[in-house]
Amino acid sequence: MEAVDYLTDERKKAAFDVEAMKIVWAGSRHAFEVSDRMAKLVANDSEFQKDDRTMLPRKELFRNTLRKAAYAWKRIIELHLSEEEASELRFYMDEPAYTDLHWGMFVPAIKGQGTDEQQQEWLPLAYKMQIIGCYAQTELGHGSNVQGLETTATFDPTTDEFVIHSPTLTSCKWWPGGLGKVSTHAVVYARLITDGKDHGVHGFIVQLRSLEDHKPLPRITLGDIGMKFGNGAYNTMDNGVLRFDHVRIPRNQMLMRVSQVTREGKYKRSDVPWQLVYGTMVYVRQQIVSDASCALSRAVCIATRYSAVRRQFGSQDGGPETQVIDYKTQQSRLFPLLASAYAFRFAGEWLKWLYTDVTQRLQANDFSTLPEAHACTAGLKSLTTTATADGIEECRKLCGGHGYLCSSGLPELFAVYVPACTYEGDNTVLLLQVARFLMKTLSQLSSGKQPVGTISYMGRNEHLMKCRCSVERSEDWLKHTKVLEAFEARTIRISVSCAQNLSKFENPEEGFAELSADLVEAAVAHCQLIVVSKFIEKLQQDIPGKGVKQQLETLCGIYSLSLVHKHQGEFLATSYLTPKQASLANDQLRSLLTKVRPNAVALVDAFSYTDHYLGSILGRYDGNVYPKLYEAAWKDPLNESDVPDGYHEYVRPLLKQQLHNARL
Amino acid sequence: MEAVDYLTDERKKAAFDVEAMKIVWAGSRHAFEVSDRMAKLVANDSEFQKDDRTMLPRKELFRNTLRKAAYAWKRIIELHLSEEEASELRFYMDEPAYTDLHWGMFVPAIKGQGTDEQQQEWLPLAYKMQIIGCYAQTELGHGSNVQGLETTATFDPTTDEFVIHSPTLTSCKWWPGGLGKVSTHAVVYARLITDGKDHGVHGFIVQLRSLEDHKPLPRITLGDIGMKFGNGAYNTMDNGVLRFDHVRIPRNQMLMRVSQVTREGKYKRSDVPWQLVYGTMVYVRQQIVSDASCALSRAVCIATRYSAVRRQFGSQDGGPETQVIDYKTQQSRLFPLLASAYAFRFAGEWLKWLYTDVTQRLQANDFSTLPEAHACTAGLKSLTTTATADGIEECRKLCGGHGYLCSSGLPELFAVYVPACTYEGDNTVLLLQVARFLMKTLSQLSSGKQPVGTISYMGRNEHLMKCRCSVERSEDWLKHTKVLEAFEARTIRISVSCAQNLSKFENPEEGFAELSADLVEAAVAHCQLIVVSKFIEKLQQDIPGKGVKQQLETLCGIYSLSLVHKHQGEFLATSYLTPKQASLANDQLRSLLTKVRPNAVALVDAFSYTDHYLGSILGRYDGNVYPKLYEAAWKDPLNESDVPDGYHEYVRPLLKQQLHNARL
Repeated sequence: MEAVDYLTDERKKAAFDVEAMKIVWAGSRHAFEVSDRMAKLVANDSEFQKDDRTMLPRKELFRNTLRKAAYAWKRIIELHLSEEEASELRFYMDEPAYTDLHWGMFVPAIKGQGTDEQQQEWLPLAYKMQIIGCYAQTELGHGSNVQGLETTATFDPTTDEFVIHSPTLTSCKWWPGGLGKVSTHAVVYARLITDGKDHGVHGFIVQLRSLEDHKPLPRITLGDIGMKFGNGAYNTMDNGVLRFDHVRIPRNQMLMRVSQVTREGKYKRSDVPWQLVYGTMVYVRQQIVSDASCALSRAVCIATRYSAVRRQFGSQDGGPETQVIDYKTQQSRLFPLLASAYAFRFAGEWLKWLYTDVTQRLQANDFSTLPEAHACTAGLKSLTTTATADGIEECRKLCGGHGYLCSSGLPELFAVYVPACTYEGDNTVLLLQVARFLMKTLSQLSSGKQPVGTISYMGRNEHLMKCRCSVERSEDWLKHTKVLEAFEARTIRISVSCAQNLSKFENPEEGFAELSADLVEAAVAHCQLIVVSKFIEKLQQDIPGKGVKQQLETLCGIYSLSLVHKHQGEFLATSYLTPKQASLANDQLRSLLTKVRPNAVALVDAFSYTDHYLGSILGRYDGNVYPKLYEAAWKDPLNESDVPDGYHEYVRPLLKQQLHNARL
Repeated sequence: MEAVDYLTDERKKAAFDVEAMKIVWAGSRHAFEVSDRMAKLVANDSEFQKDDRTMLPRKELFRNTLRKAAYAWKRIIELHLSEEEASELRFYMDEPAYTDLHWGMFVPAIKGQGTDEQQQEWLPLAYKMQIIGCYAQTELGHGSNVQGLETTATFDPTTDEFVIHSPTLTSCKWWPGGLGKVSTHAVVYARLITDGKDHGVHGFIVQLRSLEDHKPLPRITLGDIGMKFGNGAYNTMDNGVLRFDHVRIPRNQMLMRVSQVTREGKYKRSDVPWQLVYGTMVYVRQQIVSDASCALSRAVCIATRYSAVRRQFGSQDGGPETQVIDYKTQQSRLFPLLASAYAFRFAGEWLKWLYTDVTQRLQANDFSTLPEAHACTAGLKSLTTTATADGIEECRKLCGGHGYLCSSGLPELFAVYVPACTYEGDNTVLLLQVARFLMKTLSQLSSGKQPVGTISYMGRNEHLMKCRCSVERSEDWLKHTKVLEAFEARTIRISVSCAQNLSKFENPEEGFAELSADLVEAAVAHCQLIVVSKFIEKLQQDIPGKGVKQQLETLCGIYSLSLVHKHQGEFLATSYLTPKQASLANDQLRSLLTKVRPNAVALVDAFSYTDHYLGSILGRYDGNVYPKLYEAAWKDPLNESDVPDGYHEYVRPLLKQQLHNARL
């Protein structure tokens, strides 16, 4: 049978070099090459097949994940994959598993917080997976507020041990991935108590299960916390509950890089700067921003391809109906998300650089940029994950009814993604941290302290507070300087207005609480400015490939102008824009949507996702949607027989009016 | 054991009569009484238990739904329940099933479109459930555009039969609920063809399955279309696929109330006005608006109670942490949703009145209010379902991490609700219809035609185009007239601006397509105005009960002012508001949030939902959240054994470094 491709015509329309764009998206030729090789390796190996995932009951689903994780590890060893390759392979497997926490949290925690001796003892075991670890921080009653954790680790000098204990029900560890059924060990966060004194929360390595028979060790209660949102999705993960009843561990299992407890039970800080933990936070959050661009681009890829395949209305004289992607209502919802995917990609790329920069500075004992780096990673984590979660659901709606089928891939993508808005810092809590940083920066301006990095524009506050937008024609909105100034002026003006309102309160903390909803808006404005500015910085680089830079220019325009439109209230209320200028921005936005239309399919091809990874019939590369939807339907367990289970007991008695005899 | 109630203190704070509010919410004392009785009947009968639903694999889930549907029918007969009671009982069962389509679509279609003889033949069978029917309209390739359906019904005069046929794969019926596994009959929509001429889409009663053995009849292919979004959720429904291979039905199975085919194959219209179909549409959509208020109120009830139980941060001197509901960031997201639930409730109540009004007018051959009634029901369907879908997910996020657990009830509530944005008219398509109506009304103003009903404010266009908001202090925003004028002025101004931009196009359809994203915004503004005005009208009625009206005043203020804040760009861009006035609206909003805070838990108690119906541990009436979450976790199938299935094959070989021997 000849291969069909319903999107060939679409691909011919593209006015740019897709292969070159793939390199831009991947970040480098090397990154593209590794990613492409690993994606294909996974896609071509039937052991990694995942299209029955949304139909499996929990136990089968979980067993299957254990199988894949072991198989992947086997292949990683057999093929002598590098760390980079192994990580890409796990990414393309696209199935949350205990290994994520082992490699992503357990190992880094020991690396970051363990002494050299502790690293030498534990890391070789972890690297070979002779032990499997997780990260046990959150508790049933305590999430965002780490300082509120209740689990205790009390030093007993008579035996040189810590006694780990869950004093209340709410102090049960709750949520840690990999904890429920698999991990043999955990880094457990608990309040350190020596000699009756509470030293706050510290990390401890605790063995949870026997390495012989995998049973929970004495005095430890362990289990899975139950089903989570969605079919398949995060239910492949054993998020767990853990309760300690006075469990004893040797003193040397407290992670002692930053602070120690001596044999005598004395608590002391080491000379390692505690700020190191911020480095880790920057690392984890830059990874989350990069993941956001992946998840969003995946949803956008599905919705774009399907919008080009799907036709509805507009048939003239019995001809074919109009492609859904040609409707402005569709474009005005879809293309800003396409632009956001690219924008977040470049923001993530820049955050990688920031992490390297921060790390080098930390090593040189330079902590000056830390507050700014911390605020900006916290803010970008919040901004990109919220936009991505909403964006995936928007893409699902843009696929109409069929987007509601699991075979569209979108329900699972949404369900598996949304926790990113909550974990590693609840998004609202993070924005409040950013707002606090903005207020602090403003208050220090008068004392002459020059703000650095992403906040340096605040140094130009005098100009930004009084300038007016100089846009006269819609084309003016294509100029980077004008766009940038608009975002800067908006942010500084709403920040200053917040600061003024805050100053009316006698108690600053009370004011902060009362005005927190407005402060969150200031923080969002600041974060959007960062993304816009990093996109513009990217465009100032040399970008090879025919037409590639032009496409990115268009996307950058769509990203920023759709935000100007969405938040026009803030731009207008601060009197930076006139209504006329806001309307010109909208005109320009419309014309950019038209401009990106013929390139849309090629722009999502540039993500270079395999059909396996996409996991969506609607997003198939060849656009062969309908026959495959039809085919997939028959695989549902309900279709194993024409007459369903339960017909004789529960349907036939109705139809035959013999309900009184039925066993109900 | 003594009953605990962690929310007693919260309930004591309420400054109004909750019992009186329950009557307001239900619509009447009678409605409350029926609803309350049915809710308890379901909650107290263990046959209707549903808390394992998110864990069941598809076949078991479906079988279980068949059981419940049959049992409910048995109880309805045994207890001699009235139609109203039966419908409430099904509502509180809270499980989508084939019966929804049988009673909600199949029966009404025959009633609305069948001749008297057809009704006499088919309705008694349907009423007794001797046949079970569904509604087969949408096709694999055709949703919103009903006129694009491909299924054909060709009249064969030689046998006096119609030949029903699916000429292509895309013409398969796809999505109808109840079709996949249960329905014996369907009302099938197909293009009527007589003598080679296509008369457009008509309805036909077609038997699908044998009444003896339930097998599909010859030449009919039937199946379920597969898993849909979420655990449990809509997977209790057998949405189906149906393919016809030249299936013959007698001529008298075409629904012939509005048009007929004679024995000779002549097509003719009856004297029944075709506008009757609009009456049905108004009915179905008012029901959807009322369902929106139920779904949203349910999510809000869960999030509000849990926000009062959950504490995080803000502990002073080791005391308890702050209740999450006391944070302004939480209030500013949660309380507008609480207000929306009430607002949609009253909008739905008013739509019920509108349906009666439209029906009476239709019977008197008065079609004058139809376009307005149609636009307003279409618009409110779109507005309320979008806001509800987004609102449920927002409530889930407001519950932090635990909202992600199925036991919170929110994931299933979201997944089961979101199709409402797509079915019965895609929300964007509907808004474009509203926009078209707005443009038409505007264009007719010059010819002196006086707009009626919800659009009558357009008759005051001269005043509304030039007036300025007269708010001077934040208290002024509490005056109904000022709020109403603001919404009217905003809507008419953005509508007029759209009309002006449209007039620049030579081809009006081209202009409409190009500007459709802006037109959608005008339509949203119009719909928000309707909801605000119906809320205000409600407040002008006599509302008994201590403090009840005051609470509703507060909620009405929160609903409207949160919209003013969210859309301040439109109010400012149209120069109706000054930035200062917009900021005063926000100040007033903040103070209303504070005002509603002590009443919040009582305001969700007024929905009078049983714990069974809520289906949420986080939303429990007694607030006993943590012990019950802990308890529920152990019911997950993964917790049946300490050592999970797959450990020996897939985990132990890793730990023991014997992966090379493992069977992978």
